[in-house]
Amino acid sequence: MDKNVKKYIYDFSEGNADMKALLGGKGANLAQMSNIGLPVPPGFTLTTEACLAYWSDGEHLLDAIWPDVMAAVERLERATGKTFGRGDNPLLLSVRSGAPISMPGMMDTILNLGLNDVTVEALARNSGEPRFAYDSYRRFIQMFSDVVLGVSSSLFENEIVAAKRALGVRQDFEINAETWKRLIDRFKEIVKKETGTDFPAESDQQLRKAIDAVFRSWNTARAKTYRRINKIPDDLGTAVNVMAMVFGNLGEDCGTGVCFTRNPSTGEKGLYGEFLVNAQGEDVVAGIRTPQPIAELQDTMPGLYRELLEICELLERHYRDMQDIEFTIERNRLFILQTRTGKRTARSSVHIAVDMVKEGLIDRETAVRRVTPDQVEKLLHKQVDPEVAVDVLAKGLPASPGAAVGAVVFDPDEAEKRGAAGESVLLVRHETTPDDIHGLFAAQGVLTSHGGMTSHAAVVARGLGKPCVSGCEALEIDLVKERLFVGGRTFSKGDTLTIDGSRGLVIAGKVALMEPAMTDEFRQILDWADETAKVKVWANADTPEDASRARDFGARGIGLCRTEHMFMAPERLPVMKEMIIASTKEERVAALDKLQVMQEADYRGIFKAMAGLPVTVRLLDPPLHEFLPKEAELEKSLSKLRSEGKEKSPEASALGKTLAKARALKETNPMLGFRGCRLGIIYPEIYQMQIRSIFLSCLHLADAGIEVIPHIMMPLVGTQEEMKRLKGMVDEIAEELFAETSRKIGYEVGTMVEVPRAALVADELAEYAEFFSFGTNDLTQTTFGYSRDDAENKFLAQYVADHVLPEHPFRSIDRNGVGRLMKIAFEEGRRVRPGMGIGICGEHGGDPSSIAFCHQLGLDYVSCSPYRVPVARIAAAHAALGLID
Amino acid sequence: MDKNVKKYIYDFSEGNADMKALLGGKGANLAQMSNIGLPVPPGFTLTTEACLAYWSDGEHLLDAIWPDVMAAVERLERATGKTFGRGDNPLLLSVRSGAPISMPGMMDTILNLGLNDVTVEALARNSGEPRFAYDSYRRFIQMFSDVVLGVSSSLFENEIVAAKRALGVRQDFEINAETWKRLIDRFKEIVKKETGTDFPAESDQQLRKAIDAVFRSWNTARAKTYRRINKIPDDLGTAVNVMAMVFGNLGEDCGTGVCFTRNPSTGEKGLYGEFLVNAQGEDVVAGIRTPQPIAELQDTMPGLYRELLEICELLERHYRDMQDIEFTIERNRLFILQTRTGKRTARSSVHIAVDMVKEGLIDRETAVRRVTPDQVEKLLHKQVDPEVAVDVLAKGLPASPGAAVGAVVFDPDEAEKRGAAGESVLLVRHETTPDDIHGLFAAQGVLTSHGGMTSHAAVVARGLGKPCVSGCEALEIDLVKERLFVGGRTFSKGDTLTIDGSRGLVIAGKVALMEPAMTDEFRQILDWADETAKVKVWANADTPEDASRARDFGARGIGLCRTEHMFMAPERLPVMKEMIIASTKEERVAALDKLQVMQEADYRGIFKAMAGLPVTVRLLDPPLHEFLPKEAELEKSLSKLRSEGKEKSPEASALGKTLAKARALKETNPMLGFRGCRLGIIYPEIYQMQIRSIFLSCLHLADAGIEVIPHIMMPLVGTQEEMKRLKGMVDEIAEELFAETSRKIGYEVGTMVEVPRAALVADELAEYAEFFSFGTNDLTQTTFGYSRDDAENKFLAQYVADHVLPEHPFRSIDRNGVGRLMKIAFEEGRRVRPGMGIGICGEHGGDPSSIAFCHQLGLDYVSCSPYRVPVARIAAAHAALGLID
Repeated sequence: MDKNVKKYIYDFSEGNADMKALLGGKGANLAQMSNIGLPVPPGFTLTTEACLAYWSDGEHLLDAIWPDVMAAVERLERATGKTFGRGDNPLLLSVRSGAPISMPGMMDTILNLGLNDVTVEALARNSGEPRFAYDSYRRFIQMFSDVVLGVSSSLFENEIVAAKRALGVRQDFEINAETWKRLIDRFKEIVKKETGTDFPAESDQQLRKAIDAVFRSWNTARAKTYRRINKIPDDLGTAVNVMAMVFGNLGEDCGTGVCFTRNPSTGEKGLYGEFLVNAQGEDVVAGIRTPQPIAELQDTMPGLYRELLEICELLERHYRDMQDIEFTIERNRLFILQTRTGKRTARSSVHIAVDMVKEGLIDRETAVRRVTPDQVEKLLHKQVDPEVAVDVLAKGLPASPGAAVGAVVFDPDEAEKRGAAGESVLLVRHETTPDDIHGLFAAQGVLTSHGGMTSHAAVVARGLGKPCVSGCEALEIDLVKERLFVGGRTFSKGDTLTIDGSRGLVIAGKVALMEPAMTDEFRQILDWADETAKVKVWANADTPEDASRARDFGARGIGLCRTEHMFMAPERLPVMKEMIIASTKEERVAALDKLQVMQEADYRGIFKAMAGLPVTVRLLDPPLHEFLPKEAELEKSLSKLRSEGKEKSPEASALGKTLAKARALKETNPMLGFRGCRLGIIYPEIYQMQIRSIFLSCLHLADAGIEVIPHIMMPLVGTQEEMKRLKGMVDEIAEELFAETSRKIGYEVGTMVEVPRAALVADELAEYAEFFSFGTNDLTQTTFGYSRDDAENKFLAQYVADHVLPEHPFRSIDRNGVGRLMKIAFEEGRRVRPGMGIGICGEHGGDPSSIAFCHQLGLDYVSCSPYRVPVARIAAAHAALGLID
Repeated sequence: MDKNVKKYIYDFSEGNADMKALLGGKGANLAQMSNIGLPVPPGFTLTTEACLAYWSDGEHLLDAIWPDVMAAVERLERATGKTFGRGDNPLLLSVRSGAPISMPGMMDTILNLGLNDVTVEALARNSGEPRFAYDSYRRFIQMFSDVVLGVSSSLFENEIVAAKRALGVRQDFEINAETWKRLIDRFKEIVKKETGTDFPAESDQQLRKAIDAVFRSWNTARAKTYRRINKIPDDLGTAVNVMAMVFGNLGEDCGTGVCFTRNPSTGEKGLYGEFLVNAQGEDVVAGIRTPQPIAELQDTMPGLYRELLEICELLERHYRDMQDIEFTIERNRLFILQTRTGKRTARSSVHIAVDMVKEGLIDRETAVRRVTPDQVEKLLHKQVDPEVAVDVLAKGLPASPGAAVGAVVFDPDEAEKRGAAGESVLLVRHETTPDDIHGLFAAQGVLTSHGGMTSHAAVVARGLGKPCVSGCEALEIDLVKERLFVGGRTFSKGDTLTIDGSRGLVIAGKVALMEPAMTDEFRQILDWADETAKVKVWANADTPEDASRARDFGARGIGLCRTEHMFMAPERLPVMKEMIIASTKEERVAALDKLQVMQEADYRGIFKAMAGLPVTVRLLDPPLHEFLPKEAELEKSLSKLRSEGKEKSPEASALGKTLAKARALKETNPMLGFRGCRLGIIYPEIYQMQIRSIFLSCLHLADAGIEVIPHIMMPLVGTQEEMKRLKGMVDEIAEELFAETSRKIGYEVGTMVEVPRAALVADELAEYAEFFSFGTNDLTQTTFGYSRDDAENKFLAQYVADHVLPEHPFRSIDRNGVGRLMKIAFEEGRRVRPGMGIGICGEHGGDPSSIAFCHQLGLDYVSCSPYRVPVARIAAAHAALGLID
């Protein structure tokens, strides 16, 4: 590695906001602020390239760049007038990581670097605050030992607790200088005992080890987990920011805080944040002390508040986006330590985007760019119905919106386990740390007794779109006995609670939650998204209610109406059963006649709800045995009757008949069995009934002046002959009914493309099919040979975790296999029938990455569940903007 | 239709043997014989084009060509000196169908056409045989009424039976002229009653209706069935041959017969056939009287015999193939009525082809062309072991070779039904007719009490390659009570018999059958086939015995050695079970160690048997639950133990553990579940054991100087990552063992291509896979979405019968779907790895049409079951010759 080849170190004065890839987000923004004249402490950045070089070359990199690091430190000495590791006015440094993509709480930070037994005395003298100096020194030893040397923090905390007991005090800040001094000696003994070597006294060594630790922290398990969850590439690397320390803990004219230029929860305009007087930055983020709202700074330090307000406005105008700013006040002097685009809730994201368009700060396309599909998904979160009376136990901070119901769990590992098993759990902790992230990920919501709106729990929960109530000090938590005490009541592990993260409420028991509604701003941003999108969004809806909801969410058609769901209703199942166990065609037709009347009513409701928009009705698809009781159940009922001597009762005879049919219909691989259009070919009367009810309902509505656009879709078609016969069946019935009623309506007959053969002979199918709809659930099953019902727990989850598969194929379309078949079908279908409608109605239709693929392919629409429609609309726009692929 | 556009009528003198498509086989050969001077009665042919025109234009065609037909009849009058429908010497005609491809017994024939109340008197006078004249007339009425007018033959037969009873005679020939005359009147009454009109007296009308009937007969149900079974296109049409009648039934100096130039059963050179004195041709074919062997003609009519012999030799030299010749002797004058290439057994086919090469009549390629894959398949028929003592009930004619065991069934419909249900049945009849063909098709073999070697049953059975014993007169059959009496013993429907069609034996009970062996001639023709073929033939073999057999049948490698079959042996299953229910990796490895020793021995046997040839070992494929007892079985055993108070016994605990595992392994769709290489990825120790045993056995053999060529094949691979990891696994173990043993052997690692995705990402797989083998069973299942275990009875059989599918996709490769995937995989695999080995090991590998497709694709080999190897070898040659596609 030739150190001359690359410039690995940039002073803040050398960079700017566009250099995020190289300097990391934090470093680039510090450089930018520095350059526009904001009060940023001087510092320099080791680039992400240095991190990557470190990971390929290890120590050699550090050797190579060390002279440059020391030169940069000398520049800091000159800028601050202090000296590093020596002298009367010692320079202390903060060393912080900063990746190109913000990863809050995931990387390690070291403050007060440069302190040792000599410099601490100088600091004490120079600051006139010995207690501050020793407190800073002990903090440095603790932080450095934990992060760099791997010595458990709890060993030091135990000593502090013992000291406080001995002193008869409760808080750290009540510990005096002498005690800290004594504790520092004890800390050094602990380090010696745990690591076998002395705590490094030499400040250059401290800096080198700290930089090394930041580089190393890029690949810790928790950093990797965060990247995996957030789909951040592993090869970005992190930069290291080395900055002169400023102190918010030198007395009552000092402080530290975090503020947002707009409310990150609601999007409301105006400063939003918290500060702590006489504290270091880590105190705010860690949630150990509950901070004051930023508005109170106006009373405490009005001048500084005004200065902060001006800086915030400047930064927001400069970046044209809401900013998340860290500041420190050192003896009445304001320093900006960091600015970055503020993380925000989905609601806030939409609110800010729409406001900023109105304010003329950004254009509509930029607004659409700023609202991600993930955020839209979160916007559709559940809420506690404000009309319902609830048993509120306590009020905490409304840290992340939405409501959640779940069993109380105190241990993140258990939360993960029970969550994976499909149980709804609430994770309850004093406060959370990055090590708890797997539990947060698995829980429905998070409740903490400590920490503010910017505490770890709050930030992560907002990021994950999960409800969070933080800083709920009324709670007493016993982690050992796994109990929760509040207002004289006790809740044990497994008891059910509800939290309302939008209002900060903790509620006893299970509360009915309200489905989310659309706000005006939400509708606005989605309408702007539609202006940009190419691929339209349709919905899968089986009932008039679903159809109305889908339409309200902006669906432009129904891409999949599964008629079999209509047969599952309790009053219909017996008729369906009658049809299935019919031993003659006549019996079957009699049952079908009854079903026809029911279906007609269903279709009438759906077509009416979607007046003027296409409704794609898929004819019966599942194997018939799904409509019969399970074999074991039937056997049990029969043997009960027998034991009661009723084996010759009519009931027993009916049961026997059903059992015989259930056995006859039994299949080894039902997924590949007698289902889909195979039913319609072998028992044409079933499909004929369905087709007749579709047309009858449509003709009825057309009579009433309602515009109907029926698309009739055949499931599981694999051969041209199937399509030909089924198209013929529809045309024949249509002609017949049109003649009878002297009225005609336009209709289309098409097919699902859900077995590989359908895609491979798409040209043959397109001779008869007027539209295609990709059923990517089944197409994925057959293309991979994966049974969705079986694969997940048997091998698929492990395949995904183990990177045998890059993505979960039932979540995102597998481009090379399934996607290739889709491409073949698309191109060859359109070749034979130019302009034919082609869409997708598998669950992938609601997955942003899959929507991007559909956009690239040129599909007309994606069809997804009603609740996914808004997500799909924004994803379609993002796909058109090239933001996802 | 302009009758001038096409020539629809050819006199025999105008045609030749090359005009089969236009004149039909019979017509072309009659023309040819006529032109080389053989004694053929004069006649003319209405072309197949006339038949097709008839099917598109109907009556118009007959109107248009009628003047030409009458002109042709006038030419016959001039040639014979007789007059049609009038005069002292009336011209009688035979009207027979003749399609381009011989369809024996399937088309209708009318003899003695031209007789009416006037001409019959003239015939009686002119022949001096009134009995003959009236007998001919009544035959004509019967035949014409049956074929043309649709009046059931049995109505006439009833009258004849009654007349014989009244006369006190038993045989038709004992009926005198007067009685025939009276019966003729009665017959005409029957016709009038049944059809409402008089029997047509006018001979021109008779001719027109007869031609019409022949044309119509092209599309009767039985003709269509024959064509479907024999894969003859429906758009060929049939010609109509109109020929002057000659009579074999004018007295003892008359006769009729059928002879082959070589033995159609064995292929032995020399005249082979039968004749009947004083009979019409139909009497021989219909099997009503049992005829004399042709050799006896030498004694009866030595001059005529010599003439026939010369004509036979001439015809065989002329056509360079064995001929099937019909002749009639009218008053000591020989007429040849027909010659055609003789149908023959597979054995005969091979024998004749090899003999004719030796005789210099044909070249090797022609010999190979003459032996079809179907025939080779039949050659592999079973035989009764001559060493075994059998209970022979009776001896009939050895009408079609091979032996069959089955339940006696008397009704063709029942035979079809039970056969379709998978039961082995023997069809037992007095004699068969074309209406019985569906029963013959479904039965394992046919047994008749009447009829000779050329009877309907015999001809059809040979064609179908099924054993047949005909003319077993010792049998008494009661079709009503469905019983069979022989030698004082009675057999009822459902009782089991064995027939030996090679020796004509009927044997009581079930006899163990011997698998067929290879003859020298058989080996010869297959070797010649290999000279022509491009695609090689490998075999699927799981045991050393199978491997040896495959090699003996000419396999050039093992394309699929399924290792799981080795685990199914009774002594191994418990160890396999131990491995599966292991709760720790250690327990699993312990069981695997035991299995490794067993596998090593298996592989040693197979590699030794195939020394010098490649052996493709596929690693464990089926889901693990297949090696455990069924859940229900385990539950039953457990509840039995419980009821015995042994629920805490070690046995119960082991059962409980197995049951738990069986439940955990249960899958909704096992076909798409946890199997194939997914097992090897999740439990690498299983595949590692298998790989290790392969290499250890190979290294052991290599030490002994035996050449081993191991190909290790991964099942169900669908992603590049799977292939990469598994290839890495093999290479690692190989390196390790090569280092340990200081010996290296060449090996290849490849993959099955049996899920659509494997084909779609073949280029990615080929980066690691050194060969591909198409697993077309699974590939067909996943491409269509058909579960083989379920589809057949639920819908697939009906799909095939109903032409929703043109071919059964599990029998012949579906070209457009599965075939297209194969093409993609072949081309893209070879692009990435030029020249890589690509074959097929699904059951399609033994199907001639699929082999032709593999040939066209350019595959290196097809691998099929050992017994199919000879079929595949000849099919590969036929594919190269363009004879199948």
